[in-house]
Amino acid sequence: MAQQHLEPTGPLTGPVGTVTGDALAGYLRSQATEFLRALRQHRESGGAAAGAEDPADAARALRRSVRRISASLHTFRPLLDAEWSESLRPELAWLSGTLGMEHAYESRLERLLLALHRLSGAVFPAQGVGPTTRPAQGAAPTTRPTPGADPGADPGPAPAPDRGNLTVGAAKAGALLDRQLTLARTRAHSTALQALGSSRFHAVADTIALLASEVPLVKTAAGTDLHPLATAAQERLEDAVTALPLVTAGHPYNAEALIHGLSPDPSPHPQDAPWHQVRLLLRLHRYAREVLSPAVDVRLLTAGQCLDRHRDASEAAAAAASAARTPRIAPATAYALGVLHADQRHEVEAARFAFQQCWLKEAVST
Amino acid sequence: MAQQHLEPTGPLTGPVGTVTGDALAGYLRSQATEFLRALRQHRESGGAAAGAEDPADAARALRRSVRRISASLHTFRPLLDAEWSESLRPELAWLSGTLGMEHAYESRLERLLLALHRLSGAVFPAQGVGPTTRPAQGAAPTTRPTPGADPGADPGPAPAPDRGNLTVGAAKAGALLDRQLTLARTRAHSTALQALGSSRFHAVADTIALLASEVPLVKTAAGTDLHPLATAAQERLEDAVTALPLVTAGHPYNAEALIHGLSPDPSPHPQDAPWHQVRLLLRLHRYAREVLSPAVDVRLLTAGQCLDRHRDASEAAAAAASAARTPRIAPATAYALGVLHADQRHEVEAARFAFQQCWLKEAVST
Repeated sequence: MAQQHLEPTGPLTGPVGTVTGDALAGYLRSQATEFLRALRQHRESGGAAAGAEDPADAARALRRSVRRISASLHTFRPLLDAEWSESLRPELAWLSGTLGMEHAYESRLERLLLALHRLSGAVFPAQGVGPTTRPAQGAAPTTRPTPGADPGADPGPAPAPDRGNLTVGAAKAGALLDRQLTLARTRAHSTALQALGSSRFHAVADTIALLASEVPLVKTAAGTDLHPLATAAQERLEDAVTALPLVTAGHPYNAEALIHGLSPDPSPHPQDAPWHQVRLLLRLHRYAREVLSPAVDVRLLTAGQCLDRHRDASEAAAAAASAARTPRIAPATAYALGVLHADQRHEVEAARFAFQQCWLKEAVST
Repeated sequence: MAQQHLEPTGPLTGPVGTVTGDALAGYLRSQATEFLRALRQHRESGGAAAGAEDPADAARALRRSVRRISASLHTFRPLLDAEWSESLRPELAWLSGTLGMEHAYESRLERLLLALHRLSGAVFPAQGVGPTTRPAQGAAPTTRPTPGADPGADPGPAPAPDRGNLTVGAAKAGALLDRQLTLARTRAHSTALQALGSSRFHAVADTIALLASEVPLVKTAAGTDLHPLATAAQERLEDAVTALPLVTAGHPYNAEALIHGLSPDPSPHPQDAPWHQVRLLLRLHRYAREVLSPAVDVRLLTAGQCLDRHRDASEAAAAAASAARTPRIAPATAYALGVLHADQRHEVEAARFAFQQCWLKEAVST
């Protein structure tokens, strides 16, 4: 690999207008380096010593590089050693999934408690639920300054004073969700810690450490233009978007997202699946663009954020519905969870509308 | 009254561009005649004999003329005998309110059962809930072909076969709402029948019978232009619309309508009141225009329909919330009622958005 001494960030261009396998190698080396830096940072912050970096930031950086390496292995598969690539990809998927769960439960709980407060017409307390005050990921999730969030306490008939002007039902629903999602988060935290100490993880880390210095490209890669493969990723995205019900989504208050809201089928809304799929394809397209050019497409980023919001609201709605199936809850709790579920399903619908608006803008400007 | 022999429908114009008290007299005579015709029709259909007219149509026609007479007394007050007008107006309000309740409960139940079916992802049965198959108002409300609507049965743990694929919660919520609103409707029906047989009603009917031949105008009315009074009604409407949060309403999915959805305050949403007020002022404006010209302003009609939908959804949401406070309901029932409440509050938000869109169009074209 003659290009190893070159600066690995930014694309390497061959003949005018072409970007070759060398750029892919540079990108992968750069992401592998990011992974190793984040891993070191995570280990240093693991003891939670004073002045250490936030372990949540480190975990986020780890996931960020894993997603990009995994996406490149997928999109530019023909340029990489097949055996190496096929063995690494499931490991990266496992790692990304395992590391993401704790954050997912944490932000789901935060979203649901914020919604409960909004639905109660409550003024948000200065020290309360909110993205700015969320506890560090990686710290043991036992104390959290969120209103209505006392994971140890059984929700009594009267709301605690710090629950503001929540009704009894909203307060109990908040306490129930807090118990369930904090428990899930604690388990995800343990699972992530175990994973990071496992021999399976060390094998992945070793592979990525090697990747930081040597990318196993196929022989023809140095002379191969990356654009056709990147374009194929874009086309897969565009085909999937074409299949979405965008005309309906563009009509505000179409009431589509809450259809099946009371359906006997307990599985997650099947209507969400194509949107989740587009979210993944959009990410693959975005990362493929990163390999070709460092320029950020803001509209692509915004469209992705709409689909993240869609996914988050969809999962929060499912969590509210799931909590409502807890045995022996009070009718007031169940009622509040029903309102909360419907609210999050409308968030799903709002996210689809926002995506449709964003996507149309993009189509016009291209 | 020298103008009595003239055709009472359509405006009478004096000097070019002016419409005087004579037009008001013609309009009131015409509405009084409509009232008497509807009353005769209602009495004939009361026995529910074969071939008789639908008593619901007759009741609707009665309310229609009562609203218009009442509105004219309000808007054109200075042109009418004050003592006569002041004594008739509360009687018309009583009559309109009493006659409207049965229909209100009926359409509220219909709206809620339709929503429950939509939320269950159910295919609507050919013979089911729907505006085309709703039972005649005025008929004894004991048998109704609506799915999930068996007012006599206690909602058991299993849904009846004709409830389609409703969940247990949705089916029980539907049965609960059906029991409560059918009971309210039956009471409203009895109250309306009692009212129509009361001496109080006969006094109103006699007054309106006199109005059909002689309108008690003040002496100056024949030479007074109606436009300033009609314009004042329009200005009261426009001032009230200006005070509405239309900028927010014009942003789809602003999530305003569900704020306070779980508030401890059990009273109806105070945020709805200004919209209800605009609905009434818009109706007064529309009826004032009718006196001046028979031309129908379609946009005004559409705006009014948006506000009717706003009112209906607001009251349906309140009925769902109220049903959820029934003692000893199952958590699944309460959950379904919570989803239903939130759904109807989103209908409230959708109606505000539709009104905003409609109103903007009107402002542009004027």
